[in-house]
Amino acid sequence: MQFSVVILGCGSAAPTLGRRPSSQVINIRSHHFLVDCGEGTQIQLRKYKIKFQKINQIFISHLHGDHVFGLIGLLSTYHLLGRTKSLEIFGPLGIKEFITTQLRLSEAYLNYELVFTELKLTEKTLIHENTVVKVYAFPLKHRILCHGFMFEEKPTERRLQMAQLKKHKVSIAYANSIKSGKDVTNEEGQLIKNELLSKDPPPTRSYAYCSDTIYHEPIADYVKNVNLLYHESTFLENLRDRAEKTFHSTALDAAKIAKLSGAGQLLIGHYSARYLNSEPLLNEAKGLFVNTLAAEDGMIVEIQN
Amino acid sequence: MQFSVVILGCGSAAPTLGRRPSSQVINIRSHHFLVDCGEGTQIQLRKYKIKFQKINQIFISHLHGDHVFGLIGLLSTYHLLGRTKSLEIFGPLGIKEFITTQLRLSEAYLNYELVFTELKLTEKTLIHENTVVKVYAFPLKHRILCHGFMFEEKPTERRLQMAQLKKHKVSIAYANSIKSGKDVTNEEGQLIKNELLSKDPPPTRSYAYCSDTIYHEPIADYVKNVNLLYHESTFLENLRDRAEKTFHSTALDAAKIAKLSGAGQLLIGHYSARYLNSEPLLNEAKGLFVNTLAAEDGMIVEIQN
Repeated sequence: MQFSVVILGCGSAAPTLGRRPSSQVINIRSHHFLVDCGEGTQIQLRKYKIKFQKINQIFISHLHGDHVFGLIGLLSTYHLLGRTKSLEIFGPLGIKEFITTQLRLSEAYLNYELVFTELKLTEKTLIHENTVVKVYAFPLKHRILCHGFMFEEKPTERRLQMAQLKKHKVSIAYANSIKSGKDVTNEEGQLIKNELLSKDPPPTRSYAYCSDTIYHEPIADYVKNVNLLYHESTFLENLRDRAEKTFHSTALDAAKIAKLSGAGQLLIGHYSARYLNSEPLLNEAKGLFVNTLAAEDGMIVEIQN
Repeated sequence: MQFSVVILGCGSAAPTLGRRPSSQVINIRSHHFLVDCGEGTQIQLRKYKIKFQKINQIFISHLHGDHVFGLIGLLSTYHLLGRTKSLEIFGPLGIKEFITTQLRLSEAYLNYELVFTELKLTEKTLIHENTVVKVYAFPLKHRILCHGFMFEEKPTERRLQMAQLKKHKVSIAYANSIKSGKDVTNEEGQLIKNELLSKDPPPTRSYAYCSDTIYHEPIADYVKNVNLLYHESTFLENLRDRAEKTFHSTALDAAKIAKLSGAGQLLIGHYSARYLNSEPLLNEAKGLFVNTLAAEDGMIVEIQN
């Protein structure tokens, strides 16, 4: 079952022809979430053939332009496409005014409801939940109020062992009970333990998005044992001063957080426009944390069970 | 001497992969003006290799997203590119709040000054002037406050006739006086009429931008005898009801205004996304006004003397 991250943009600050500003689509078992929405995100959604209407929740890390300037355009396009279903927007305190001011001055009416959840968190907090995933937000450390997001998959049902049902004379009518973990009674009136009839579901998976932030160790706790960690890597270590001054991280910082958190894999991104090629950043991170990937626009990263 | 219009985007409403929302660069004898700034305009500027810093005045027709959502991103990028020179923004009443709210909530500081001129016009008004051009704004008729813009080239200097200077024994030291139209005294103390020594400069040229608007005859007066008229053509005549309901024009409407105004050439654009091919719109306009061009992204239209 799918759990994938589609990189719509992994540049920082000014968009370039090669890399668009931050935006990602997280697809968890056919539930689609948009994370950040830099200018041009709607064009990237079209380019990578992601159906706009599949997205019902948008998560915005902070109000710097390269993470949010594409949101108003996307919301307008939803209206033009005839959306009627409400859309949830999770973002920092201020995001509602940011959007509604533009709508008011444009005299724009939307056919659908916008439901804002404004965040100003000091600890990891559950902000959204559906049948397949729990989404948490947690504070990052940037120049302005900024949150990371963690997507934790919920377990699927237990896997039926058909041969065992037959062996223990259990009717298939109990399938749903068994999949939900219950013990059941067989045709001879005996109680059969669930673990004889089903196997554990595949392990659950998780994804964390950490952009933008300075190196900040509490993040490692928030994303403990995450399967895939996206951590910004705006600079190389030789620009550490610049990273600290602007509250950004180096590729080595990202690797340190990956290591500290026990992440399965690290995905770096949010590169400064000076790095036309991400390889030096990738190599720097790999020096400390081997299982690292460098994001590029259009990349799809699958998270395996 | 150059007077050209570069189409950065000529779609309407939702951007598509083929056409971006409204934006144009007007280049008049090396003075560059940006007119409208839909989402992704800064990417289009890069794509068509137009130097950002050459633009010192931006004209926004109205606050519908497809004409303005790219402005905040462009302003942010100017800051990142180290701009220090002030930037003038002319737009409808409300544009200052539209931009400054976003800057405030992003906690964004710009190294350069933004100078807003907010318009709410009922007649054609001179809003900007430099050594080569006068820029006028005038009211269009749309769902919200909306202005068109007219760029009127100023005459260049008179053209010296070197053979005539020699013939009339006039020193070349008088060149600047002659080019500015003055009569001068020759070596024999005679007053020589300017028209004997110089020719008229080439005729001046003009460009008018009319988007978005319903068919509105007063526009023809505002743009009387314009050399090149850009007039929106969102629909074909068979969607006249829709055009009227949304305060847009058909291609035939655009041709009517071109004819009424005595325009030299018509440039249609702002096509509804339903028209993947602009040819039917072009044909409809040409039926009434033969000298019509259909805008496409990346097109450069030169206005000849």
